[in-house]
Amino acid sequence: MTSEAAGAFRVGLLGHGTVGSAFRELLEERAGTIAAELGLRPEIAGVLTTREGDFDQILRDSDLVVELIGGTEPARDYVLRAMSAGRHVVTANKQLLSRHGEELFAAAREHRVQLRFEAAVAGVVPAIRVMAETLAAAHIERVHGIVNGTTNFILTEMARTGASYEQALRDAQELGYAEADPTEDVTGADAAAKMAILARLAFNAPVHLDQVSYEGIERLTPDDIAYARELGLSLKLVGSAERIDGGIAVNVYPAFLYAGHPLASVNGSFNAVTIESPAITEITLSGPGAGGPQTASAVLGDVISAMIPPPSVPPPAVEQPVVEDVEFSFYLHLEVADHPGVLAQVAEILGMQGVSIRSVVQKGLGDEARLVMVMHPVLESRFRAAVALIARLGFVREQPRVIRVIEEVFE
Amino acid sequence: MTSEAAGAFRVGLLGHGTVGSAFRELLEERAGTIAAELGLRPEIAGVLTTREGDFDQILRDSDLVVELIGGTEPARDYVLRAMSAGRHVVTANKQLLSRHGEELFAAAREHRVQLRFEAAVAGVVPAIRVMAETLAAAHIERVHGIVNGTTNFILTEMARTGASYEQALRDAQELGYAEADPTEDVTGADAAAKMAILARLAFNAPVHLDQVSYEGIERLTPDDIAYARELGLSLKLVGSAERIDGGIAVNVYPAFLYAGHPLASVNGSFNAVTIESPAITEITLSGPGAGGPQTASAVLGDVISAMIPPPSVPPPAVEQPVVEDVEFSFYLHLEVADHPGVLAQVAEILGMQGVSIRSVVQKGLGDEARLVMVMHPVLESRFRAAVALIARLGFVREQPRVIRVIEEVFE
Repeated sequence: MTSEAAGAFRVGLLGHGTVGSAFRELLEERAGTIAAELGLRPEIAGVLTTREGDFDQILRDSDLVVELIGGTEPARDYVLRAMSAGRHVVTANKQLLSRHGEELFAAAREHRVQLRFEAAVAGVVPAIRVMAETLAAAHIERVHGIVNGTTNFILTEMARTGASYEQALRDAQELGYAEADPTEDVTGADAAAKMAILARLAFNAPVHLDQVSYEGIERLTPDDIAYARELGLSLKLVGSAERIDGGIAVNVYPAFLYAGHPLASVNGSFNAVTIESPAITEITLSGPGAGGPQTASAVLGDVISAMIPPPSVPPPAVEQPVVEDVEFSFYLHLEVADHPGVLAQVAEILGMQGVSIRSVVQKGLGDEARLVMVMHPVLESRFRAAVALIARLGFVREQPRVIRVIEEVFE
Repeated sequence: MTSEAAGAFRVGLLGHGTVGSAFRELLEERAGTIAAELGLRPEIAGVLTTREGDFDQILRDSDLVVELIGGTEPARDYVLRAMSAGRHVVTANKQLLSRHGEELFAAAREHRVQLRFEAAVAGVVPAIRVMAETLAAAHIERVHGIVNGTTNFILTEMARTGASYEQALRDAQELGYAEADPTEDVTGADAAAKMAILARLAFNAPVHLDQVSYEGIERLTPDDIAYARELGLSLKLVGSAERIDGGIAVNVYPAFLYAGHPLASVNGSFNAVTIESPAITEITLSGPGAGGPQTASAVLGDVISAMIPPPSVPPPAVEQPVVEDVEFSFYLHLEVADHPGVLAQVAEILGMQGVSIRSVVQKGLGDEARLVMVMHPVLESRFRAAVALIARLGFVREQPRVIRVIEEVFE
């Protein structure tokens, strides 16, 4: 390790594509907070692209090297040289790890440096760390993963709209969820590389990409999806790694999942990994599988772990005011006498308090009539004030019932 | 730190209830593997219960103390004394941390020991570690959690069967998902303690249990659940912690979730935590929220992290055979000419290969007829052999289509 400038932690960046530039931006944005909280300020010591930068110079100036070039060469050569020179390495390179993992891990152990690669599998979903740390003592029996966002997006669209594979692929390409040449993704090859890495960690077995058999989604039809839905099944491209008959099996294939399976409700471009072990039953981790900023965030998490051992005690806290009155969306259930003008009076009171109605349903008739409403977000105090006024209306037969409503994270 | 016997790591265990005895059992079961992989063998140095054991003696004999007594006293006193004596502490005690967290964290920093508490929130779901490590550099905006398994079980039953709250609670008690006195759970008090801990870590603010307002599920009715389902909403007891107006808000309340929210599909006694941050969008972690073995597994993960820094490079791999032929459940889609005896012939071939049919649906008539079948699990080679024979039958009009089916983890 080279000597460090006071308080600085120098990061050499290899590759400056989508993830590389997002990483650089995120690091620069968060450097001040990291320095304040952890006592070391991460800095970009140099950037290597096909057009500029000198690897040896960057190596000399760095405490740690981030490899975001992708592919096996020259990435392998750079990573090995960085570790030989005593530098920690963080990489997002699934091809490199699924083909040359054992060589790289041996080199890291030999040179006593860290080699971290959370971002190589399922983007920001912390599958690697959870297996290596939380489950360090567990006997992992099986791992199921949705580890390719492109194919999950295409299959979600086919299920949602009834589109053909070809049409859903074109939609995915237009929306930026699939590349112009989608072969790596749709054939299952990308997922196979990620499953090789997960299987390596789950079972401590040397799994090479060539040992993972895979099938893609190209021949799936909307009618298979429709029939299976009648049986309560949803279709996903699944990677599986399991212990079986004293050995292991690692495969990628399209599969129908029963509705109760934790991966069945993972939709769109999201990734998820379910880890099964007798002691824990199962853990499922899900989140965005790719995207520059998300992958960059996983890389930065690894860089920070390499800089400073993760804290085993929270840092001293900083007082922050606790806010009592918060905006929520609300559900309101009113039992009312069913006569003209009821809804108008309720709506008027809500409107006076600035509460706007998102949807309303009337249930039942006469003395059994009920209004079931959902509001747009509003400060709780305003909504409670409106409900107190509504409760006093003559036609409201019972205490109004109020329940909060939480929006989707994405709409 | 006391001197260590060669290769041994001595764990003093305070409390020997459900989690304590499960922890002891798990540690003894896994000790050999841990010793082989990590080079240190964990051992129980002594156990303190209300009836036996001497705290001072256990402290002298331990490298680390596991506190599973629960409640604030004498747990607080023991934890403080253990840390003063230079011992790492692992605890699952949410009451202690949500009431005396700052005092305990300060003592841990002062005595330079670790204080780990993954099991205090959401059982085996690694929310604490992911926030402290994966998201060390992220700016967390909001955390939503289903952090109480009892209430989630009750609400899931109410939604599934239309039962009243009282009936669903009795069912939960009979099945062991609710205690004889369910007050802590159903009022939201238990969830409030866990949200105080999550908010402390997410925002680095000193959140005391008293600052978390909470509502329970006792007044919820099946008709609210039914109406809301028509609007695409499902009902959960949710903990929320968010940054807002330069402060923070931490609350527990029943809430309707839109179907697209990652917590909407978390059912039964499971727990889950969704963490939102601009860089990552969101991560969701789910798994069993409680239960002796699951909580014990989280405690053991913490003990191992305290024993040995988590590896930043995978350990050397051990060769394991890769199994090619695996049991799966299969979906089979056949386009057939619709005449008598078709299903019988297909079933006969499947039966000869030992393939048993789980469900079958016929679609369409005449030249448009299709058989859609799901099989019970069978070795892939046997199923493929049967399909090859079926494909040769005269009435099979197109290449059969085969897709794997993955069962629920729980049935």
